[in-house]
Amino acid sequence: MDDKLKERLSHFGQGGYDRSLTGMELLEVSGGKARVRLPVGEAVQNANGMLHGGAVATLVDVVGTLAIMSADRDGRPGVSTDLNVSWFSPAPGDSTVLVEATVLKSGRTLAFVQVDLRRENDGALVAQGRMTKFLG
Amino acid sequence: MDDKLKERLSHFGQGGYDRSLTGMELLEVSGGKARVRLPVGEAVQNANGMLHGGAVATLVDVVGTLAIMSADRDGRPGVSTDLNVSWFSPAPGDSTVLVEATVLKSGRTLAFVQVDLRRENDGALVAQGRMTKFLG
Amino acid sequence: MDDKLKERLSHFGQGGYDRSLTGMELLEVSGGKARVRLPVGEAVQNANGMLHGGAVATLVDVVGTLAIMSADRDGRPGVSTDLNVSWFSPAPGDSTVLVEATVLKSGRTLAFVQVDLRRENDGALVAQGRMTKFLG
Amino acid sequence: MDDKLKERLSHFGQGGYDRSLTGMELLEVSGGKARVRLPVGEAVQNANGMLHGGAVATLVDVVGTLAIMSADRDGRPGVSTDLNVSWFSPAPGDSTVLVEATVLKSGRTLAFVQVDLRRENDGALVAQGRMTKFLG
Repeated sequence: MDDKLKERLSHFGQGGYDRSLTGMELLEVSGGKARVRLPVGEAVQNANGMLHGGAVATLVDVVGTLAIMSADRDGRPGVSTDLNVSWFSPAPGDSTVLVEATVLKSGRTLAFVQVDLRRENDGALVAQGRMTKFLG
Repeated sequence: MDDKLKERLSHFGQGGYDRSLTGMELLEVSGGKARVRLPVGEAVQNANGMLHGGAVATLVDVVGTLAIMSADRDGRPGVSTDLNVSWFSPAPGDSTVLVEATVLKSGRTLAFVQVDLRRENDGALVAQGRMTKFLG
Repeated sequence: MDDKLKERLSHFGQGGYDRSLTGMELLEVSGGKARVRLPVGEAVQNANGMLHGGAVATLVDVVGTLAIMSADRDGRPGVSTDLNVSWFSPAPGDSTVLVEATVLKSGRTLAFVQVDLRRENDGALVAQGRMTKFLG
Repeated sequence: MDDKLKERLSHFGQGGYDRSLTGMELLEVSGGKARVRLPVGEAVQNANGMLHGGAVATLVDVVGTLAIMSADRDGRPGVSTDLNVSWFSPAPGDSTVLVEATVLKSGRTLAFVQVDLRRENDGALVAQGRMTKFLG
């Protein structure tokens, strides 16, 4: 595994805004894929007790970036230029979501990643996002 | 002001994932506009000490929802179907951002909002987002 | 197959802006999937002789709508609220693209579809889009 | 005006997929702004006789690219990485739309543009899009 990625994983979820994803657990990062598990505790809920839309977008960013780093020869995290999310089904307060990021293209200067969120109990698709990063 | 909006504002930023936007200050909500100020403290930074992409997306959701509630006759917050963000310039750790949400269309069943983030000191556009909500 | 979908397929690509996708061939529509083939002729190229970005977005709309109709019990085409596209690799003037649309969620009032474009000769991912439609 | 932009304008709307926007009239291109007028004739309509979603996305691409060229010192058109559109109100078959593209950021390697479509008769916002281009 690349050193930059190893360094990032050594304090995964422990600094800055990454801490907002309370309870996030890293399952796998390798070869352009990253998988994370998040219980929908109070800290990531919206006013209706569901997983907050902002937390979903933050997962797209955080988990997508790990996948991109794992696909790049130099482990570059890059800088986001674009991100989008669509929501299909709610993730209620007593559920857990599985987040899976898959790199769509990893080039010299740009990388693209797709991120799917599913409810762990029934596999229902909660949301899908896509992110574009400039690797410089 | 609508009762639902008043109720939401009475505990603005105090519950669930809204708390992740540490230091957020509400400047104005009225007639399809909402304005918020956020100092880029450690709690909303990424690994490079800049405003985290996830915090930007969360601001689009949170401030955009206030603007939508203020434009709707019944103050409905709705449910997000789509959100996108593009990033233009970084907001470094010692800066402050001004977030301005403007409703583009408020209909019977759907509402759309544009959200601009600017650095307070020089007015540079940091990011722009758009969100679509289903009002039911 | 639903009557509305049958009716639409009977004059597929023959009216209005659908005609702009010159040479488009329908391969399959069924159960929330739709597949189309398009040779990159002069009529769909940009100034560099590649598949035009607007043609890609139009394919996302047209092929995505067929998939959505095929997933809905009443064959409703709906009205687009949001569409996005990311581009990964060019489709040059002498190539052919395969377009595959897959419904992500088909509900009572909203439907979501993902659309992938690949080069036929080497399978490379050219672009990916997502569309949200309000079914009313 | 830059030579590359002058060259492109000399055959504006006359080659490839640009021809799909039948009746498009260029009103202005200068300093990061571009304005175009399009009557909603049969050639740009969908099955309901409204302006086709694909035509809207193509306008975002075409008019947005002109604005980006006019903002760049070397008149570079770039290559699209991301495009999104939201739809607010229909543009019926006997109407005309005004398209206005405004560059949000024009940098060394990336450019971003916002594109608004309005009905000419009543000024209603029909759609809004955003596009990101890699300038190389």
